Amino acid sequence: MTDSDRLYGRHPVLELLRSGGRQADEIAVLSGGKGPLQEIVALARRAGVKVSFRTRDQLTAIAGSPDHQGVVARVARAEYVEADDLLGIPAERGEPAFFLALDQVQDPRNLGALLRTADVLGVHGVVVPKHHAAGLTEGAARAAMGALEFVKVARVTNLVGALESFKRSGVWVYGASPSGNTDVWDVDLRGSVCLVLGGEGEGLRRLVADSCDGLLRIPMKGHLESLNVGAAGAVLCYEVARQRASEAKSL
Amino acid sequence: MTDSDRLYGRHPVLELLRSGGRQADEIAVLSGGKGPLQEIVALARRAGVKVSFRTRDQLTAIAGSPDHQGVVARVARAEYVEADDLLGIPAERGEPAFFLALDQVQDPRNLGALLRTADVLGVHGVVVPKHHAAGLTEGAARAAMGALEFVKVARVTNLVGALESFKRSGVWVYGASPSGNTDVWDVDLRGSVCLVLGGEGEGLRRLVADSCDGLLRIPMKGHLESLNVGAAGAVLCYEVARQRASEAKSL
Repeated sequence: MTDSDRLYGRHPVLELLRSGGRQADEIAVLSGGKGPLQEIVALARRAGVKVSFRTRDQLTAIAGSPDHQGVVARVARAEYVEADDLLGIPAERGEPAFFLALDQVQDPRNLGALLRTADVLGVHGVVVPKHHAAGLTEGAARAAMGALEFVKVARVTNLVGALESFKRSGVWVYGASPSGNTDVWDVDLRGSVCLVLGGEGEGLRRLVADSCDGLLRIPMKGHLESLNVGAAGAVLCYEVARQRASEAKSL
Repeated sequence: MTDSDRLYGRHPVLELLRSGGRQADEIAVLSGGKGPLQEIVALARRAGVKVSFRTRDQLTAIAGSPDHQGVVARVARAEYVEADDLLGIPAERGEPAFFLALDQVQDPRNLGALLRTADVLGVHGVVVPKHHAAGLTEGAARAAMGALEFVKVARVTNLVGALESFKRSGVWVYGASPSGNTDVWDVDLRGSVCLVLGGEGEGLRRLVADSCDGLLRIPMKGHLESLNVGAAGAVLCYEVARQRASEAKSL
């Protein structure tokens, strides 16, 4: 098992096997493992995934971590796509565009959680900058719980350029900012949109905020000034999904 | 025992266990310890505090000092309140109750992020079980970004009992579950509510789900079966805030 990404731990591997689509190339399981590990082996065999049995120490070496819980999967390396490639996806799905851009999200765990959210709530593609931002690493893969298999990620040198390109294609670009002037639930998000989230520390960079068609605010009722980026992303993506599901009704 | 304040020595730990105030999350005791140490173990068990047994060297490492006299306690970073204390908060704020219950959320970072979300979106109080759940440790405090100062957390031995008590006080209890039969946006959450989220691995326990007035589903549009608990909590708390802000309008 070389030259590819590893996913380890029972829950991540189960999610990967259950999710169909692009599957694990191979899984390595603890020899004599019982219970959940047997379930994983049965699922893998049903899905036609090769299974090998190893010792605990071998699994640790393969995973590069002792936290494998008795199972490691080899998955095809998630490849980045071009930002322009994302533009064809909405038409394929017969839906108005729904993109997410992450401006310098630096924690792989936050990136992974956002990719999981993106899959669950129907985002068509995610754009991240090449610099000062987390990439599709093992840490991101673990937090994504298999979502790397399904969510297209474009990595761009110039995030503002990518947003401008979206706008030329008829996509409305909305940044999330505590200093935004419109409550998120008061904006019609049923057309083609790209939501833009800032990184953990500083929020949206000035040039990125300036390139947005509007800045949306999640109304704050407490003492802290913002949600973490994973929570903010979940809220915004949910609001898009909610509005689109209730298209026939009023907002 | 990581990520929180330590208290060590027989007398300090006895005082801690007898005081009720700032509570112990866990105590580590010398294996084979007699006399006062046995009394400490008995007190801890009566108080529902987790007990583990260690060697003298392990205790020294945990305490960061050899002066532990055979016992080290891990102490919560913030004080817990009683579940019944939460019931007075909505009236103080002049709002319908808005509680969050976390059934066995085990990752301190997820707990912290949820407390941050709770503060920002106006939750009145959070309930967590004493066992198999993260406590208010240093790791939770870091992820909460200061929210521990503002959000009241009740830690209870019996989560179902706490939910039943809420129900007797007129609070509607809604669990979040991918197998729920109602879309979250189709339920009126403007009255007094407690939202219940399951832990990272297994979701809501059966008895907890059974004690809910209803199970709400966040509609899933992708391949994965669920959001992570932090994202799910953000979405549900947002939906409550959104509905309450638009009270005059239709849902």
